[in-house]
Amino acid sequence: MKYFNRFRRFFELTLSALAILALFLASPPCTAEKGKNILTVSDSVEIVRKYAGVAKRILEEASADSSGYFRLAELCDRFGPRLSGSSNLFDASRWILEQMHRDGFANVHAEEVMVPHWVRGEESLHMQAPYAKSLSMLGLGGSVSTPPEGIVAEAFVVNSFNELAKRSAEAKGKIVVFDVPYTTYGETVTYRWRGAIDAARAGAVASLVRSVTPLSLNTSHTGSMGYFDSLPKIPHAAITPEDASAMHRLQERGTPVRLHLRMQARTLPDTLSHNLLAEIPGTEFPEEVVVFGGHIDSWDVGQGAHDDAGGCVAAWEALRILSRLGLHARRTIRVVLWTNEENGARGGKAYAEAHAKEVDKHILAIEADAGIFKPRGFGFTGSDAASGVARAIGALLAPIGADTVWRGGGGVDISPLTRLGVPSAGLNVEGSRYFWYHHSPADTVDKIDPRDFSECAAALAVFAYVAADLPERLQREHAK
Amino acid sequence: MKYFNRFRRFFELTLSALAILALFLASPPCTAEKGKNILTVSDSVEIVRKYAGVAKRILEEASADSSGYFRLAELCDRFGPRLSGSSNLFDASRWILEQMHRDGFANVHAEEVMVPHWVRGEESLHMQAPYAKSLSMLGLGGSVSTPPEGIVAEAFVVNSFNELAKRSAEAKGKIVVFDVPYTTYGETVTYRWRGAIDAARAGAVASLVRSVTPLSLNTSHTGSMGYFDSLPKIPHAAITPEDASAMHRLQERGTPVRLHLRMQARTLPDTLSHNLLAEIPGTEFPEEVVVFGGHIDSWDVGQGAHDDAGGCVAAWEALRILSRLGLHARRTIRVVLWTNEENGARGGKAYAEAHAKEVDKHILAIEADAGIFKPRGFGFTGSDAASGVARAIGALLAPIGADTVWRGGGGVDISPLTRLGVPSAGLNVEGSRYFWYHHSPADTVDKIDPRDFSECAAALAVFAYVAADLPERLQREHAK
Repeated sequence: MKYFNRFRRFFELTLSALAILALFLASPPCTAEKGKNILTVSDSVEIVRKYAGVAKRILEEASADSSGYFRLAELCDRFGPRLSGSSNLFDASRWILEQMHRDGFANVHAEEVMVPHWVRGEESLHMQAPYAKSLSMLGLGGSVSTPPEGIVAEAFVVNSFNELAKRSAEAKGKIVVFDVPYTTYGETVTYRWRGAIDAARAGAVASLVRSVTPLSLNTSHTGSMGYFDSLPKIPHAAITPEDASAMHRLQERGTPVRLHLRMQARTLPDTLSHNLLAEIPGTEFPEEVVVFGGHIDSWDVGQGAHDDAGGCVAAWEALRILSRLGLHARRTIRVVLWTNEENGARGGKAYAEAHAKEVDKHILAIEADAGIFKPRGFGFTGSDAASGVARAIGALLAPIGADTVWRGGGGVDISPLTRLGVPSAGLNVEGSRYFWYHHSPADTVDKIDPRDFSECAAALAVFAYVAADLPERLQREHAK
Repeated sequence: MKYFNRFRRFFELTLSALAILALFLASPPCTAEKGKNILTVSDSVEIVRKYAGVAKRILEEASADSSGYFRLAELCDRFGPRLSGSSNLFDASRWILEQMHRDGFANVHAEEVMVPHWVRGEESLHMQAPYAKSLSMLGLGGSVSTPPEGIVAEAFVVNSFNELAKRSAEAKGKIVVFDVPYTTYGETVTYRWRGAIDAARAGAVASLVRSVTPLSLNTSHTGSMGYFDSLPKIPHAAITPEDASAMHRLQERGTPVRLHLRMQARTLPDTLSHNLLAEIPGTEFPEEVVVFGGHIDSWDVGQGAHDDAGGCVAAWEALRILSRLGLHARRTIRVVLWTNEENGARGGKAYAEAHAKEVDKHILAIEADAGIFKPRGFGFTGSDAASGVARAIGALLAPIGADTVWRGGGGVDISPLTRLGVPSAGLNVEGSRYFWYHHSPADTVDKIDPRDFSECAAALAVFAYVAADLPERLQREHAK
């Protein structure tokens, strides 16, 4: 209750400031086209004024009801990780559909998607010299197997693709180890994705990559990887930062490191999976849709809680909040839990294809796939005019500090829609700890704070609802 | 160099304040006995005045030379974890003795100690329901094995010994899981130590304990455990906080958790190990000794870097610093790297027994076994008079912020000496992250900061040297 009262007071104090704030937030950028769809200052103030009451109700409802978080925990604990093609994903999807039916949403259904089916199988990495030790490792998604007896070879550690290129003669017949400390995900993940390619080019028999994470307690992180058809496909796995750096120091001291890598990974024929959909139909323009959600598949370790059960259940919970409050927007609000984001992105493609005829009726697509932490706002991709509206909607989230709308944002699953011109947004969160957990056995629901979850759900609900309810639809880059 | 200059300026500024500070720090407590050995205010000022120059040289030398840290890294990387009875410990001990001989210390030798010899063997924990999953686990040191085929049973999760006692009927035939979140090490470790006893009393077939750590990335932590001879000895292992809490939530939702535990742990006959010793002989009272060090054994995971290769090599490095500076104290300064602290404490006992005739000549015993982080000072156990001297010595470490001397402190390995009246001290460090790593695969040398290491070595060198060089020995609790 204490939290509530503080919350309410804060909300009321903030509200009076919002209209003024919005003058600046939503002032149209100088590059905007002229025309009737350009957001004027008074339009922005109008959005804030008109929807402040609804936003308040949504925020209060989100923080008053913790059943969404419990549902997230049940999904994570009961079904575990949900790799494409796994029975875990199949069972979890069926359970979610049942729950969505019970929630009383409209148009609850699954849409079929054929997805890649990679299985890890048994795998192990042993150091044989300088002393015997079993090392933590995770084969990377899509990797080939080793021969049944494994591969025994000396490690050759490098700190970059450049070093490997310069010293490629030393890599021949070795297991190349990329010991590249984390800088940013985008930068460091290159070694996960391209490692087996560059190592194979140098004649290595396998490759290992230091897990892509800024903090490790001897934790390995998996993820997707690539091969070139023109080069030998060699087994590729992630090891812990601790072991990568230890091997590096040993090599620098002239102590050979001998490894035994065994992987039984296999790529099976594509298999059936599903995108999961539920809606609250629009009252005025039901054929126009705001779509939002996350991806229900995950890697095959931990619980895929931050990535991306949290985003899925937050979006689903957003729909429940609107439903509980009896809020029906002018346009349809649709939640989609896409499949196969992690190792194929087939769910997002399939959705865009299945709904090709209504892409023009997609007002806005939102993805929540950056972990569930304290929400900060949204990254938005769309026209200047639409960005102005997005900033005005974002201002409604000032009471929870989620009112910043950056230019540029979206998500893997909605990117086919983004490319077709659908205004797109990604939920932004305080992500400093995200890559501690990402794609690892540590991505479990205990790492998600219930209040962060309810605030993310609230942010999604406000953003989706207001965008769906505005008198005019968001303007596209090139007005049609 | 920048660091050096800042360091020097800080040192000089601080130095003038020290004499005044010492007036308060070393003022004799009101409970002190009267007598010539009581430290007076002027004695304290005198200690600070006399040894400030030496302390400055030691601190500068420690930060100028990083060879000690490289030696620590080599020990950790090359030999790995060093459980009592393992070839790793044997090989590491031999290497250390060779290096100590090369360092040119006096009286370098190993003293034989018979130690327990527990081996982990193959072990695994699989969840069979609600879905199939391999769980991270570590058998606890001294645990019995399961039958070869393992134990399959349902989990019964409790949050305390009290809950187990109240619901003991439900524990019969089950694998009891203690899901007790970390509060303090001393409090939470009870479940690791006593878990198998209480679970066996309730008729459980095995027991699992949530790893004793405040932060987990799905990391298991091992450690010692106990049995009662009057009760069945059941297998006992640590699991991750993530899995313990997930099992707890599943149970609360009424979802049964079925586990398959396999452990091949064995206790072999006691085997030979060694305490390792090296000295700088005293110039005036060579038969009087200041002894200090850490324990060279560790658990059988990670590298035992913080626990306690770091303490060992910091003490060893302290002796090297004194040696490099040509500092010879009035009394002998002896480094001991004790064996078998982790699962038997036989090294500390053996030292006290082997040196029984010279215990009275032990002026001070210091242990470094709390991890190598930023040093804060020392915990001291001894007479009021000796505490006053210890505080005055501690004041010399103000330039590195390690000048606080608390009452109460020591270490497992020196505790037999402490009990015999030898004034004792433990190096205190900023330990907020210690239990993130402790007894886990994450206790690796990359978790030790080189500057923290050199400051710990410097703190040990100053404390040991000054205590060994003072005109009068530290007064014992009951003067003899």
